[in-house]
Amino acid sequence: MLKMRPARSTGDSQRGFLIPIGGAEEKETNPVILERFVELCGGSSANIVVIPTASRMADTGSLYVELFEDMGAAHVDFMQLKTRADCDRMSNLKRLDKATGIFITGGNQLRLSTIIGGTPMADQIRHLNAHAVHIAGTSAGAAILPEHMIAGGSTGPTPTLDKVTLSPGLGLINSLVIDQHFRERDRLGRLLAALAYNPYACGLGVDEDTAAFIDPYGVLEVVGSGGVTIVDPSDITYSSIAEIRNGDVVTLTNVRLHILASGARFDIQSRRPLIERVLESEEEA
Amino acid sequence: MLKMRPARSTGDSQRGFLIPIGGAEEKETNPVILERFVELCGGSSANIVVIPTASRMADTGSLYVELFEDMGAAHVDFMQLKTRADCDRMSNLKRLDKATGIFITGGNQLRLSTIIGGTPMADQIRHLNAHAVHIAGTSAGAAILPEHMIAGGSTGPTPTLDKVTLSPGLGLINSLVIDQHFRERDRLGRLLAALAYNPYACGLGVDEDTAAFIDPYGVLEVVGSGGVTIVDPSDITYSSIAEIRNGDVVTLTNVRLHILASGARFDIQSRRPLIERVLESEEEA
Repeated sequence: MLKMRPARSTGDSQRGFLIPIGGAEEKETNPVILERFVELCGGSSANIVVIPTASRMADTGSLYVELFEDMGAAHVDFMQLKTRADCDRMSNLKRLDKATGIFITGGNQLRLSTIIGGTPMADQIRHLNAHAVHIAGTSAGAAILPEHMIAGGSTGPTPTLDKVTLSPGLGLINSLVIDQHFRERDRLGRLLAALAYNPYACGLGVDEDTAAFIDPYGVLEVVGSGGVTIVDPSDITYSSIAEIRNGDVVTLTNVRLHILASGARFDIQSRRPLIERVLESEEEA
Repeated sequence: MLKMRPARSTGDSQRGFLIPIGGAEEKETNPVILERFVELCGGSSANIVVIPTASRMADTGSLYVELFEDMGAAHVDFMQLKTRADCDRMSNLKRLDKATGIFITGGNQLRLSTIIGGTPMADQIRHLNAHAVHIAGTSAGAAILPEHMIAGGSTGPTPTLDKVTLSPGLGLINSLVIDQHFRERDRLGRLLAALAYNPYACGLGVDEDTAAFIDPYGVLEVVGSGGVTIVDPSDITYSSIAEIRNGDVVTLTNVRLHILASGARFDIQSRRPLIERVLESEEEA
């Protein structure tokens, strides 16, 4: 009865990582995020499938294939999913069987949700993530990962009604709503507006060239040159969204913010930053 | 890690029914929907809690208490949840312990999502529904039930971009998106727009004075004087929502529709109407 529930580990199989990236990740000089992804997927034995569906550019898939091959991944391939029929084709579904990692490129997240959403390919991706396959997505590829996806919206720090459009995403996690190009496109307002509707999920605002590596236990670690902003609505005492009109500013009290830079960790379940442990381990070193 | 996942039965406990009602249900002459709800909750041993949070009218709670008492329910009570703090109060959470049914009234679903969403009360309602407590909601109370809630939108049969606003709901079911006052407020277009973003959930358009009684196995039965429109996007071959601008009409091909009247049943898991069985049992009678 519960179709497309968030993927979860079953039996003794462990979930794979989820890796939302804020877009514009460094690709040449010091590509720490992409290198870490390749390493996580098995390095010289990694089998990575790139999904460039969000992009309209012809060479997005082959660009990432080249990058991952240069970083030493054994098998890298990209899969053109241009129609919903492509997402129901056995040869495409089977291609993922040996994958240790899936990389979803940037572009328009609505291409991802309208082409992949509700197809056997979407089920397959959730199933694989529940069984140890790591899923990374950059920009639009990051937005599509959770159950509730930010489909669009406007810029600026103050939340207003209709600042954000939500839609169902891939459903790989439902405790986070993810926004990207966060600092560069000034998106705090739309992330706050997304949480103001129903203050249960945590907001994750990921800057460019920055990633959150979320492990199977729900602990994320920040990697890259920017920051990750966590918006925790647990203690919100009031949201005015039911009382206001289009364009009005949303009153929202007691929002908790964390700004995390590279190396910092955060436990999504308990909603606590794990900076202490970072400091402790530094003292030990 | 997966906070607020859709409620589901655990171990040997069976889920309760979910009963979205399209609003304006008959309350006096022939209140078949409300009577059936009371009967389902145990009739003369029913313990029903009314949640009038969506409504701004002072007497909504007491109105339903009186109705359910007149129908023979043993214990009926309403619970004023006016703030998020009310949803974290032990006395309120405990009041639900003995409930066999919860009834969520109409009003504005954004009051429900902003006041109850993400609180211990929301967790409690999901927990109870997973453990045999029946949850009915009328109008706004129906909209809030699923994981993806229709928060607002405009009227008319043709879907256009931004015709619908989605937000997280209570998360009691994620295979359905529910709209209400369906025929009376001409809402097919906004339900289609909701599904066009990510064609995975089924759309359920519930007319006034009509309900879908969804059993623990995901089979719904229509009760009342109007119809339930099922919009099944399983076979959608193309959705243009990634390619168009605000106000543009959404191209959407191969949508499957079912219009079901009182007595008809539908299996949400297999997405098949069970009219045959209705006819068979009529022949047997």
